[in-house]
Amino acid sequence: MANIAKKVSWSSRTDESGAAGEGTPLLNGSEQPRQLRQLSEEGGLFRIGRLSTVDLEEDVTAEEESLRGRPKEIPHNEKLLSLKYESLDYDNIENQLFLEEERRMSHMGFRCLEISRWVVCGLIGFLTGLIACVIDIVVEQLAGVKYHIIKENIEKFTEPGGLSISLILWAVLNSAFVMVGAIIVAFFEPIAAGSGIPQIKCYLNGVKIPRVVRLKTLVVKVCGVICSVVGGLAVGKEGPMIHSGAVVAAGVSQGRSTSLKRDFKIFEYFRRDTEKRDFVSAGAAAGVSAAFGAPVGGVLFALEEGASFWNQMLTWRIFFASMVSTFTLNFFLSIYHQKTGDLSNPGLINFGRFEGDTVTYNLYEIPLFIAMGAIGGLLGALFNVLNYWLTIFRIRYVHRPCLQVMEAMLVAAVTATVSFTMIYFSNDCQPLDQEHAEEYPLQLFCADGEYNSMATAFFNTPERSVRSLFHNQPGTYNPLTLGLFTLTYFFLACWTYGLAVSAGVFIPSLLIGAAWGRLCGILLATISSTGSTWADPGKYALIGAAAQLGGIVRMTLSLTVIMVEATGNVTYGLPIMLVLMTAKIVGDYFVEGLYDIHIKLQSVPFLHWEAPATSHWLTAREVMSSPVTCLNRIEKVGTIVDTLSNTSTNHNGFPVVVQVSGNDEPAKLCGLILRSQLIVLLKHKVFVELARSRLTLRKLQLKDFRDAYPRFPPIQSIHVSQDERECMMDLTEFMNPTPYTVPQDTSLPRVFKLFRALGLRHLVVADDKNKVVGLVTRKDLARYHLGKHGLEELQLAQT
Amino acid sequence: MANIAKKVSWSSRTDESGAAGEGTPLLNGSEQPRQLRQLSEEGGLFRIGRLSTVDLEEDVTAEEESLRGRPKEIPHNEKLLSLKYESLDYDNIENQLFLEEERRMSHMGFRCLEISRWVVCGLIGFLTGLIACVIDIVVEQLAGVKYHIIKENIEKFTEPGGLSISLILWAVLNSAFVMVGAIIVAFFEPIAAGSGIPQIKCYLNGVKIPRVVRLKTLVVKVCGVICSVVGGLAVGKEGPMIHSGAVVAAGVSQGRSTSLKRDFKIFEYFRRDTEKRDFVSAGAAAGVSAAFGAPVGGVLFALEEGASFWNQMLTWRIFFASMVSTFTLNFFLSIYHQKTGDLSNPGLINFGRFEGDTVTYNLYEIPLFIAMGAIGGLLGALFNVLNYWLTIFRIRYVHRPCLQVMEAMLVAAVTATVSFTMIYFSNDCQPLDQEHAEEYPLQLFCADGEYNSMATAFFNTPERSVRSLFHNQPGTYNPLTLGLFTLTYFFLACWTYGLAVSAGVFIPSLLIGAAWGRLCGILLATISSTGSTWADPGKYALIGAAAQLGGIVRMTLSLTVIMVEATGNVTYGLPIMLVLMTAKIVGDYFVEGLYDIHIKLQSVPFLHWEAPATSHWLTAREVMSSPVTCLNRIEKVGTIVDTLSNTSTNHNGFPVVVQVSGNDEPAKLCGLILRSQLIVLLKHKVFVELARSRLTLRKLQLKDFRDAYPRFPPIQSIHVSQDERECMMDLTEFMNPTPYTVPQDTSLPRVFKLFRALGLRHLVVADDKNKVVGLVTRKDLARYHLGKHGLEELQLAQT
Repeated sequence: MANIAKKVSWSSRTDESGAAGEGTPLLNGSEQPRQLRQLSEEGGLFRIGRLSTVDLEEDVTAEEESLRGRPKEIPHNEKLLSLKYESLDYDNIENQLFLEEERRMSHMGFRCLEISRWVVCGLIGFLTGLIACVIDIVVEQLAGVKYHIIKENIEKFTEPGGLSISLILWAVLNSAFVMVGAIIVAFFEPIAAGSGIPQIKCYLNGVKIPRVVRLKTLVVKVCGVICSVVGGLAVGKEGPMIHSGAVVAAGVSQGRSTSLKRDFKIFEYFRRDTEKRDFVSAGAAAGVSAAFGAPVGGVLFALEEGASFWNQMLTWRIFFASMVSTFTLNFFLSIYHQKTGDLSNPGLINFGRFEGDTVTYNLYEIPLFIAMGAIGGLLGALFNVLNYWLTIFRIRYVHRPCLQVMEAMLVAAVTATVSFTMIYFSNDCQPLDQEHAEEYPLQLFCADGEYNSMATAFFNTPERSVRSLFHNQPGTYNPLTLGLFTLTYFFLACWTYGLAVSAGVFIPSLLIGAAWGRLCGILLATISSTGSTWADPGKYALIGAAAQLGGIVRMTLSLTVIMVEATGNVTYGLPIMLVLMTAKIVGDYFVEGLYDIHIKLQSVPFLHWEAPATSHWLTAREVMSSPVTCLNRIEKVGTIVDTLSNTSTNHNGFPVVVQVSGNDEPAKLCGLILRSQLIVLLKHKVFVELARSRLTLRKLQLKDFRDAYPRFPPIQSIHVSQDERECMMDLTEFMNPTPYTVPQDTSLPRVFKLFRALGLRHLVVADDKNKVVGLVTRKDLARYHLGKHGLEELQLAQT
Repeated sequence: MANIAKKVSWSSRTDESGAAGEGTPLLNGSEQPRQLRQLSEEGGLFRIGRLSTVDLEEDVTAEEESLRGRPKEIPHNEKLLSLKYESLDYDNIENQLFLEEERRMSHMGFRCLEISRWVVCGLIGFLTGLIACVIDIVVEQLAGVKYHIIKENIEKFTEPGGLSISLILWAVLNSAFVMVGAIIVAFFEPIAAGSGIPQIKCYLNGVKIPRVVRLKTLVVKVCGVICSVVGGLAVGKEGPMIHSGAVVAAGVSQGRSTSLKRDFKIFEYFRRDTEKRDFVSAGAAAGVSAAFGAPVGGVLFALEEGASFWNQMLTWRIFFASMVSTFTLNFFLSIYHQKTGDLSNPGLINFGRFEGDTVTYNLYEIPLFIAMGAIGGLLGALFNVLNYWLTIFRIRYVHRPCLQVMEAMLVAAVTATVSFTMIYFSNDCQPLDQEHAEEYPLQLFCADGEYNSMATAFFNTPERSVRSLFHNQPGTYNPLTLGLFTLTYFFLACWTYGLAVSAGVFIPSLLIGAAWGRLCGILLATISSTGSTWADPGKYALIGAAAQLGGIVRMTLSLTVIMVEATGNVTYGLPIMLVLMTAKIVGDYFVEGLYDIHIKLQSVPFLHWEAPATSHWLTAREVMSSPVTCLNRIEKVGTIVDTLSNTSTNHNGFPVVVQVSGNDEPAKLCGLILRSQLIVLLKHKVFVELARSRLTLRKLQLKDFRDAYPRFPPIQSIHVSQDERECMMDLTEFMNPTPYTVPQDTSLPRVFKLFRALGLRHLVVADDKNKVVGLVTRKDLARYHLGKHGLEELQLAQT
């Protein structure tokens, strides 16, 4: 996940924010920024993002090279909050243009709009399902080819010594696939690395992660995940589906592709953050739905991670998208599997059907399940801590694309070697069973009619291995095999997550858990005399898988539903819930969930559900940024251009004030205008003087703002002549005349609640005379978090 | 459901709002109220609530008797909005006392609070599960006794003519049970009638429905539901579980019982609307969870109906309560069924397990499912329309408790007679099968070793009948039996819903749907030559049940999950979703869902998720109530008492203003105080003069407010002497110093969003000088709704 850090630097390409790492007046007081700047001069505090600034366009400066020599001074960078990330605007900008449009629209118009929302959601679901289908089929085909080659090779050289050739072949094949996957990720689109879930979580939280929902990201993601899965890494193809769904949603809902420069002139109404974020929620849900065949789980995922304001209609649309996505996937896969029309087939990962007597459980098993949940929580915490240190290491040392590619190839080769060694030294031979025929049984040193069960665990795609652990007959695996497998796979998966490849952590987690869960089941059956009747290893494998996954990602509600839907049986609902809750409680005691760790390491201003409990003593006065740059309702163009060009401030929202004439009272707040709006106004030269001389033929419309969305040009690209600088701009029509305000004495939890519930980007703090005294933004709120020693304040940084 | 209407009048017992039906300054302008008053003098517009005012304490006045003679002038009263319902305060009152308490609290304190929240949720789940268990066992035992008596009687008199004795016995037994159930509901607690889901929906929406979460309501509800189910009405025991869970939650979370006058001095922190409503959500979820064995469905139900602000921690707690509830129920039922410890047994209604080959479906079945969804939507709409007219009829004519009891008994007798007739004339004999043995097979005129299948459908509890329709072998029922059964049961169920008995509509809907669904399955198998292989009647029964239920109640997401969890198989997830969506779309074309109809008929100010789409042309200026009664920060006691005593206004929130001294500027808003707070202040005589003379020994604390919650005494009960009237009260410490405000130009959707997302009760409208110009309350927003001819405005009424 060095990728987000890198993306930080990638986003700096736009140069909107002044890459100089200058202290900003947005910071409260003046002590802190100075102190920070000092630190940055001394060590490189601000350089974390830039340290990984290896870019196609920018060359690495000498200064940065020198910094690279002394990376030990880099502090734990999760204590920082990056200023680079902007907020999404979930609040509608209800300016005059918008209100006029809404008022012109008839009842029928709104109905059409609603229908087109449903159509878009249907399209999102369809395309997401299709992508899942393509990934699945391509992976299966390529993996099939690879396994056949290796299997034939192994069978050819089963005499001692000869196998080293097979090993090399295997390692090289894997590395080659992974190399392709890593190259496209590292060089073309670093944001496509990893599972994409942390990025989507941030996006749904309201943080604008640059380039995260672009077409290029999607292409790289899809190709990358195919390569890494086929490359035999300890990864899954499920996590990336969520990201893919989100990109599809962001693309389809806009009715155009900025990358391909095609505008279909449809869905223009949806070209704003509010609508787009809703669709991205639907896309993420559709992704989950396709990945796990879990439409309800998808909806819950989108809600748990994203929508702070639960809207019934929105939820139904999300549900619809999920439904269509599963349906599409099932339909095409049923054709592919030549069982056309049989739609009972779940998503990408198929846990198989739990049926019959094995599904029941008894009261006395509940404590066992809870104990397994605790183990899962512990192992998950260990996984997360290891991965945390690994990620810190990667941020410091492994930041150049070529290094990243090499690391990925190394992991691929090591994975192959370790697997091979394990298979080689294991002698867990099992009879080839007609019923549970493995697709690629490996005889190796076993007698005829038998196969090596360690090979089953390592040699298959992880999805198949999970299924085999869930469903193979008791006795298929011996305990030693499972123990060794758990151990090695645990470290491999931990090492793999965070590489510059597109890959998810769901399946490896499930696989680790299923392995030790099955081990538990076998041990229980051995210990207890009656155990063999109730301690079905498959059942315990399922519980173990849930525990391990819960311990790593720490989701509860959505994960329960996903697991239940993936197993196709609600009987296990209750134990899975218990296990996931236990795993979460135990895991949270030590360290946060994996996704949250990665989000923190990237210094994203992520807003949690509630303000820290002990923050009631803070008020808006302490929290807000001040002084605020205000604009007059009728403002000189020169002032506006200068304000926007000021790289040291880089504000994005400006309260608009009006001076009551002939009165020395302070100016009163009368609206709020965004940088993006001002830029469109400047571009179209909406100046009072020009309007008077009737040089502008048409009035500026909402369409002009929508056309510029979301890639508004930087202020530098707009040319304003010296004459024009003297003109005036009337902001009345374009500003939001009714911004939300709070008094200065409002407590932080209250400010937080308002901000979070409405998805705001700027919240004006006004005094009792309606004078602007400050502005609260996402960073001001995200700064405060509950640490081990009570309330802590993160430092703001320009990285 | 005449009960809510009656409750309207019941709530008027407190006399807070002046029963005179006076026009109120809260109404905008002056034309409307005058027109309304005129109407009321002419016809009885305001008397709808009072028409059904038959009360234990109030006598029916002569005037009302005379009104009863001319009920034709009563307009459709769903076009009214009652002023009687107050809002819950989901917004914390962050006054100085509160902030001081929060600031004093350590990090550990908050953690303890969080733990006690979990404990409370656990208790809620446990008690709800226990209640469900008690209901289930008592119903089963009583029904068993009843059926045995009747069965023996019937078998004794199977010769023609003799059966009329059995019929009479059956009808009398049923009527007796129903009479008991109806008497306790009609005379002791009318709010306990019906399923309680509309009332809980309203409560979760933020409307304070009087007496809905009291202990007495719970007792009546539990006894009532037992009586009505045993009485053989076409009702289910599932809906009332949701209400029961909510009452349990409201009780347990407060750590005391006001009815029993016991205060356990625990959970005092939770004694406010914000916390209480969260717990009530958990209780409702626990109720669903116990009723259907659907913990996830319960959570979704609570969210779909209630929580507008989706909070992750809250959701988990709700989930926990649901889980504990299912667990408790399963545990105790497993003991009762002598399979101790077998927890795989789902909730009250058990759809049985769908397994094996019957569960698959094919692509070509999807259109069939959708068609069935459409049928369900149509039948559901018909059901709702019929029930709507019936409810109007009941509100007009059947409002006296004795009439209600008689109607309930009539329905019970008719149900018994119709069932008996149907059984008598049907000759659908089926062989007694070892595998699917009915618990009460009725031989009647069938040959030995056979039983009458019509009797199975009518003679069992509805839950058993549903299960038998889902799972009995193909050929168990003949099409004519099913057709006749659907027809009669449809009308019986429609007539039954809304009687003054505690009963739910879920199971009857499922039963109707299962019957015609099975019929469809049988017909399909007959029509198509290959049909018998795929057209499993059980599968179509399930789809039909979903369609019918969806068509009546119009839930989608939560209902899908509930159905999936109740069937124990996710394979049907997709078809059930499709069916529910189709049913909703088709049904919504004609009429709203059953619960919404009943809510509308009670004129509850229910806030939907979003403001009507075409309401952008309305601004806060038009919507707000004005003028507003403001109080000064330091106000004369006499003024406060007079303001509170003014029955013609009956305001509940008062903006507090401060006059800038020596300036003729208008007074500025500085806070907001509630009626309930003022009453506590008056009760404790917190007057400036007394404080100076040190007569009050201790400062007023938050505890004093909590002790008075939620049954604050009326102003009339507080004695203020003439001397005291001259004292002053300082509101600074007690008012909320940072109320949310909006400018006058804010559009209605924007006001609505703020109000709904934060669960506000009062929203102050201020001008640009921070002067109070109006107040927006729930009724001001709920007034606007989208009718058939665009935006419509409901009339406010004192009923």
